[in-house]
Amino acid sequence: MNIDGKPYRTIWLGADGASAEIIDQTKLPFALEVVTLRTLEDAAHAIASMQVRGAPLIGATAAYGVAIALRADSSDEALDRACEVLAATRPTAVNLRWALDGMQKAVRNQPHEARVAAAFARAAAICDEDVETCRKIGEHGVGLIRAHAEKKKGKRVNILTHCNAGWLATVDWGTALAPIYRAHDEGIPVHVWVDETRPRNQGASLTAYELGAHGVPHTIIADNTGGHLMQHKMVDLCIVGTDRTTANGDVANKIGTYLKALVAKDNGVQFFVALPHSTIDWSLDDGRAIPIEERDAREVTHMTGRLSDGTVATVTITPEGSPAANYAFDVTPARLITGFITERGITPGTREGLALLYPEHRKAAAA
Amino acid sequence: MNIDGKPYRTIWLGADGASAEIIDQTKLPFALEVVTLRTLEDAAHAIASMQVRGAPLIGATAAYGVAIALRADSSDEALDRACEVLAATRPTAVNLRWALDGMQKAVRNQPHEARVAAAFARAAAICDEDVETCRKIGEHGVGLIRAHAEKKKGKRVNILTHCNAGWLATVDWGTALAPIYRAHDEGIPVHVWVDETRPRNQGASLTAYELGAHGVPHTIIADNTGGHLMQHKMVDLCIVGTDRTTANGDVANKIGTYLKALVAKDNGVQFFVALPHSTIDWSLDDGRAIPIEERDAREVTHMTGRLSDGTVATVTITPEGSPAANYAFDVTPARLITGFITERGITPGTREGLALLYPEHRKAAAA
Repeated sequence: MNIDGKPYRTIWLGADGASAEIIDQTKLPFALEVVTLRTLEDAAHAIASMQVRGAPLIGATAAYGVAIALRADSSDEALDRACEVLAATRPTAVNLRWALDGMQKAVRNQPHEARVAAAFARAAAICDEDVETCRKIGEHGVGLIRAHAEKKKGKRVNILTHCNAGWLATVDWGTALAPIYRAHDEGIPVHVWVDETRPRNQGASLTAYELGAHGVPHTIIADNTGGHLMQHKMVDLCIVGTDRTTANGDVANKIGTYLKALVAKDNGVQFFVALPHSTIDWSLDDGRAIPIEERDAREVTHMTGRLSDGTVATVTITPEGSPAANYAFDVTPARLITGFITERGITPGTREGLALLYPEHRKAAAA
Repeated sequence: MNIDGKPYRTIWLGADGASAEIIDQTKLPFALEVVTLRTLEDAAHAIASMQVRGAPLIGATAAYGVAIALRADSSDEALDRACEVLAATRPTAVNLRWALDGMQKAVRNQPHEARVAAAFARAAAICDEDVETCRKIGEHGVGLIRAHAEKKKGKRVNILTHCNAGWLATVDWGTALAPIYRAHDEGIPVHVWVDETRPRNQGASLTAYELGAHGVPHTIIADNTGGHLMQHKMVDLCIVGTDRTTANGDVANKIGTYLKALVAKDNGVQFFVALPHSTIDWSLDDGRAIPIEERDAREVTHMTGRLSDGTVATVTITPEGSPAANYAFDVTPARLITGFITERGITPGTREGLALLYPEHRKAAAA
C-alpha cells in the first residue's frame, strides 16, 4: 500500500540481490526506517524483536532468512541450522513453520550450486503468493462490508479490528484490513474502530498508521472500549487476523481477541477472522494445544512515544517493584466466530466450514 | 492504609480547619504530593481533573467542596451554586449526587451562622462513614476469599480486579480491595491480577501502587489478558468496584468491566462487585439509562511515565492525525454478576438481592 503516495511492500529483495530489506516496525509510527537483513542472525533478530511481525510477514522474513543463510553456506547442515534458528524466534504463528517447510522442499533436492538461487526464488514466490492471497481475501471480504453498507443505506459501516492484521502484518494488503482497503477504494463508506492493542500497541501505532497513510477514516480506542460500542450498536462487524487457526476453527490471535469475540456474540455483532491458508494448522484439532508465547514484562511496564520536542523516548508507567506478566496471544473458540474470510472465499467459523474450502486437507486429516 | 509505614487517608481536614487536603492521584505512582483545596474551584478542579477519583472519594471531596464554599458565602444561593458546580464535574458516579444531597440536608435548615460548622461536620462524617462502610465490605468479602483458600488447601487465591477500587478510590480501605487487604492481613495467601486499565492506567498506576505499598503480592497485566488467564484457571474470582449500580443490579464501572464479566461467565469464574450503599441509584431501573462520560481523547493518545533519568514526562503514542475516542465507563448487566459485596453483607447480583439488603429502598421504590 502507499505511504505518502509511494507504494511499499513490507519486505523486498535488496538491490544487491543477496539481502532483504524490511520496514522496521518497532520505529512506527514515529519514523519510517528501512533495515537491511544481510545475515541469518539479522533475519532471526528482525522476527524475535518484532521489527517484522504478523503471521504472514514472519513467514516471508523467515524464507528470506533461509536464502540469506544459504548464500553464506549452502550445505544441508546450514539449511537445517537456519530453519532451526528461525523456527525458534516466535512460537505461536504457524506460518513460520509453513514457510520453513516450503524452503526445505524448494532447496533440499537441488544441487549445491543451484540452492541459493532456488532459495531466493522461493522466498520471492512466498512474498508474491502472499500478496495475491491477501488481495483475494480483500476481494471476498468486501462483499460483507458492501452488504452492511446497503442495509445502512449509505451510512458508513463501522468495523472494529484488534491488533494489526493490515498490510504491515503481511507483504501487502493485509488480512483483516484487506476487505476494508478494498471497500474504501471502491467508495463504500467505512470507519474503523482501532483497538489500541496493549501491551505493544500494534493497533494504535501500526493499524492507525497504515489506515491514516491510505486515508481510511478510523478512531483509536482503548482495548476496553469495544463492549460499550457494541452495546450501543456502534459496531457493524468485527474483522481480526489470526496467528494460528486449528482444524476445528479455534483461533489464536493477539491477546484480547477472545474478549472481543465474546462481546460480539453477546451483542449479535458478526465476528470474522481473515486468514490465508498458511495460518491453518491442520495438525491440531483444539486451540488449547497452541503454545502461547510469553514476552518480556517490559512491554507492559514501559511505553515508547514522542516527547513534545519530537524526540522518541521510553517511559516507565508502573510503580517500581510491581511485576508484570505479558501473554502475547489468546485462543478464541470457534463457537464465537461467525466466519472465516480466506483467499478461497467466506466460510462458517467451524471445522466443517474450513474443510469445505480446503477439501485436500480434510482428506489428509482423515487419512 | 499505609504508605512507607505511615497511615494515610485520601482526604482530610486541613490544619487550618477551613480547607481539605488530598493526595494528588494524577502524580501517582511517581510522586506522593498533597494538595490543599481552599476554594470551591479547587474542589471542582480536583474532581474534574481526577486528582481525586473513585465514586466514594468523589463524594467525600464534593462534601468538603460545599463546606469550603459556604465558608466564603453561606447564603442559599452560594449553597445551590456550590452543589451545581460540583455536580457538573463528573456525570457517572452517583455518590457525588448522594453526597451533595446529604450536604443540602445537613445545611439548608441551619441558621446562617451555624452552616459552616454543620457543613464541615457533615463532610467529616461522610468520610468517617465511608471508612466504616469500606471496613465492613472487607469484613463481609473476606469470607469469599477464605472459602477459596480452604478449597485450594492453602495455595494462594488469585483475584482479578479492574481499575482502582482500592483505598485510593475511597477515604480508606477501598471497596473491591477491602476484602483483599483484610485477607492479606489475616494471613490468607492472595495474589492480585491488576488490570492496567487503559486509558488512564488506574490499575497500573494506583492499584499496583497501593497494593505494593501495603505488601500485597500482585502482577500487572494488559487489560486484554484476563480471558487467557481465566481460560487457564489462573483466576479464582474477580472483584471490581462500581461508579453507579441501578436498582435492577446493572453496574456502571470503568470501561472494560463488562468484558471481564463476560469472560468470567464464559469460564465459570465468580464475578463480584463491591459497593457501598451510596453507589446504588434506586431511581434507575436499567443500567442503559446511566449517562456515560466521554473524556478527552488525549488520555488515549498520550501516556505519562518516568524517563530513565527519573523525570516524569508525557509522550504521544499514536500517529499524528489519528483521532481517538475515550468512553470512561461501560455497563455490566446484572445477569453477569455473581454477587454484590456491601457493608450489609453479600447478596446475589440481582434486583431481589439488592432489595433483600436494602428493604427500606424496596419500599421507597414500590411507593
